Amino acid sequence: MIDLNADLGEGFGRWTLTDDAALLSVVTSANVACGFHAGDPSTMRRVCALAAERGVRIGAQVSYRDLAGFGRRAMDVPPDELADEIAYQIGALQVFAQAAGAKVGYVKPHGALYNRTVHDEEQAAAVVRGVRLALPGTPSPVLGLPGSRLHEAARRAGLPVVAEAFGDRAYTPEGTLLSRREPGAVVHDPDAVVRRSVGIARDGLLAAHTGERIRLRARSLCLHGDTPGAADLARRVRTALRAAGVRVEAFA
Amino acid sequence: MIDLNADLGEGFGRWTLTDDAALLSVVTSANVACGFHAGDPSTMRRVCALAAERGVRIGAQVSYRDLAGFGRRAMDVPPDELADEIAYQIGALQVFAQAAGAKVGYVKPHGALYNRTVHDEEQAAAVVRGVRLALPGTPSPVLGLPGSRLHEAARRAGLPVVAEAFGDRAYTPEGTLLSRREPGAVVHDPDAVVRRSVGIARDGLLAAHTGERIRLRARSLCLHGDTPGAADLARRVRTALRAAGVRVEAFA
Amino acid sequence: MIDLNADLGEGFGRWTLTDDAALLSVVTSANVACGFHAGDPSTMRRVCALAAERGVRIGAQVSYRDLAGFGRRAMDVPPDELADEIAYQIGALQVFAQAAGAKVGYVKPHGALYNRTVHDEEQAAAVVRGVRLALPGTPSPVLGLPGSRLHEAARRAGLPVVAEAFGDRAYTPEGTLLSRREPGAVVHDPDAVVRRSVGIARDGLLAAHTGERIRLRARSLCLHGDTPGAADLARRVRTALRAAGVRVEAFA
Amino acid sequence: MIDLNADLGEGFGRWTLTDDAALLSVVTSANVACGFHAGDPSTMRRVCALAAERGVRIGAQVSYRDLAGFGRRAMDVPPDELADEIAYQIGALQVFAQAAGAKVGYVKPHGALYNRTVHDEEQAAAVVRGVRLALPGTPSPVLGLPGSRLHEAARRAGLPVVAEAFGDRAYTPEGTLLSRREPGAVVHDPDAVVRRSVGIARDGLLAAHTGERIRLRARSLCLHGDTPGAADLARRVRTALRAAGVRVEAFA
Repeated sequence: MIDLNADLGEGFGRWTLTDDAALLSVVTSANVACGFHAGDPSTMRRVCALAAERGVRIGAQVSYRDLAGFGRRAMDVPPDELADEIAYQIGALQVFAQAAGAKVGYVKPHGALYNRTVHDEEQAAAVVRGVRLALPGTPSPVLGLPGSRLHEAARRAGLPVVAEAFGDRAYTPEGTLLSRREPGAVVHDPDAVVRRSVGIARDGLLAAHTGERIRLRARSLCLHGDTPGAADLARRVRTALRAAGVRVEAFA
Repeated sequence: MIDLNADLGEGFGRWTLTDDAALLSVVTSANVACGFHAGDPSTMRRVCALAAERGVRIGAQVSYRDLAGFGRRAMDVPPDELADEIAYQIGALQVFAQAAGAKVGYVKPHGALYNRTVHDEEQAAAVVRGVRLALPGTPSPVLGLPGSRLHEAARRAGLPVVAEAFGDRAYTPEGTLLSRREPGAVVHDPDAVVRRSVGIARDGLLAAHTGERIRLRARSLCLHGDTPGAADLARRVRTALRAAGVRVEAFA
Repeated sequence: MIDLNADLGEGFGRWTLTDDAALLSVVTSANVACGFHAGDPSTMRRVCALAAERGVRIGAQVSYRDLAGFGRRAMDVPPDELADEIAYQIGALQVFAQAAGAKVGYVKPHGALYNRTVHDEEQAAAVVRGVRLALPGTPSPVLGLPGSRLHEAARRAGLPVVAEAFGDRAYTPEGTLLSRREPGAVVHDPDAVVRRSVGIARDGLLAAHTGERIRLRARSLCLHGDTPGAADLARRVRTALRAAGVRVEAFA
Repeated sequence: MIDLNADLGEGFGRWTLTDDAALLSVVTSANVACGFHAGDPSTMRRVCALAAERGVRIGAQVSYRDLAGFGRRAMDVPPDELADEIAYQIGALQVFAQAAGAKVGYVKPHGALYNRTVHDEEQAAAVVRGVRLALPGTPSPVLGLPGSRLHEAARRAGLPVVAEAFGDRAYTPEGTLLSRREPGAVVHDPDAVVRRSVGIARDGLLAAHTGERIRLRARSLCLHGDTPGAADLARRVRTALRAAGVRVEAFA
């Protein structure tokens, strides 16, 4: 059983990036941009409406405040400010999720915040504080890398964690993502992406970039949506997963 | 019986403007800036916490997206976009209101949006749609000028309206605000502001800028908080109101 | 003899919109976005470098400060602020133009500012003040609609004006643009766009949307660059112009 | 002989921070905010006009793009983007400096960028590239900490460097600034600030926070302008310097 998540609504005003309608017919969880790295209010409303209509779970894809850098530039935001910025974004998205008859069902940091909170305990704890501030009722799942500081902080705060993996990223023998600065960090061959996705989802196994086989525990697969052909590839992954006997289903 | 409202939390990051703590010991309703003309998330959290602690009602002071112009420049925002931008702001504020054990209890447009929705039917309706989108449960009061398109739109949508008046603004014989471009549009003499505030609240009467006496119906008085001495003047108004036998109390 | 201009560099960070490289092989004048409605510094540098390399004149495409609305929402900016905002944008672009061995050779307002300064004398004068503030040496041409307030203000200030026309927009019998709110305001048929462009450039004649023939005086044709197929259509227009004996050349 | 510099124009729109007029009667070099951490175009124009009128040298106070954090949050901006962002800011300021009959006479990074480029070679080099891109003629001085990577990069690029020191900051025995996170990092006692400023400017000597006496080479003293009483303290420092026989004069 595997969940498929993708970043959606990553346009801003006149600019579009992700093929939201196409991806929403493939994924089971939608990481909706909340306005800090992308995502204007009207796009947020439309993506939530379509996600709710198709039964796709809505998650808040929270970010540093950085439109110019698309949230890809790590920032030394003081933890209290960061927690409040996270809460702000979730609250804004909640309005559109609820208007669609749904709710914000989980949270996933975006870009540089995602990478930073793998290692940075302080910012990881701040993100979790922001999540709890904004979603004080039912504990909200936090989607991220297994073993990350973010997941540790979430667990300590009593929040469920959902481990994700990437079919299109190279891994080290230790099971961490190979830095994007290294050659081969991103897998571009669609066949390889499909094969690796099935390997992760069905067997929990993957070839590291060194060739060794590693174990990867993941309840969700992240599909990238911001490249040409992304929706097609996502569809192929989903079809292949089913053909391999893997049930595609949102996490509980 | 009169409500006292003021714009609060109108700083942004390093910049502060309103003396929030002092004003929160005077007003009964706090129009909290939501990030589009002013109001960073941490300020929003702090103002909501203090307002809740003092039993001051929290309102969303929604604005055009215009930090550089402090929301004072009218914008031809398409109605659907405007509605979504309003909802976004309210949702973000709701998080901090709820974290303080309170909720967003009303909505008031800021600056140019306030002025525009006095006359502009389309934008007035858009603001009301945004309010309903963000606060779908109990109908949320809309604070504004009596007779404004905003109040008409709110009424049509089943939302309560709260009429406000200004002790420090000159009025025309027709009971509308004298444009800020006219000489004498703002009353600077503190004694006059106090006297006029009492006149409005106790008697529903005011001298227009032409000298004629006019009737002004108001459930709330707006106190300005962004000038030096604002908090002192606000305190004087409150004291004078009580001395004149007017009960100072938030609208229901 | 006709100049061909297009809006370029209208991406922002992660987002792209215009096919700058392709259009720069067609146009003779590049309206480069300066960061207020689009255009990050790195894009500005790249577009200037490529324009200079290809001998395309660089113009400052100045705008209201409105990334979220792509500069398409008219704003009541006080004239002095507007003049300064215009100057700021031109100055920023000048750096990249000069780094490419060129200079800012003209100015054209974008979107809502373009439309507003057709009629609004105050804002038109403010734009011209901004141009003169930023480019005090050789008087800088202002590209715009013939008969616009902007052109009047430019002329009064001693700046050359360059009249432009649109092959893909419908005109009224009075020779003004048919509002985009009217049906048929934009001509989508590529053949018609080519034909109309040639008609304007060679004969100074065009069929108004009512069918009447009108005279249109234009030294520059604006080609739109933000739609799929824009570069192809631009190339067809240029080819047809040459075939019709029209010399395609930047204004002096 | 010592130069006095201060950060000026650090408001944004409705918000003000620095008492520009008062400080411009004290300092010899004005670090003018350029819009990325503070500084709207109209403020930039006004500060440049007043600085030119008083014979104060105008410098570009360049920053990360971070209004919400006032440029105080370090950002992992890719070097090429950073260089272009620096150039953009300088170009914008140049317009207002030239309109005042002056020019951008030096560059000083602000806040987190200042601190980061003390140690970060890559960002230091990027800032210098941006300076050279924007000011390709006469090599422009770079104001900063002696021994910083920024100064090294400037020297390698053939730019003059100007060493600055702080009368109101504690120093380590190694002659570096004590981190603001340490107690006593900022000297609040005005008498101490005056005494230390004179010590640095006249003798090149200062007591480190451990009590040891250290040598500090500085051609400029930085006076902080964003606190209440800042202008008064600045005036006292200037008076004391003169009384001590130190000539207050801008660097060449």
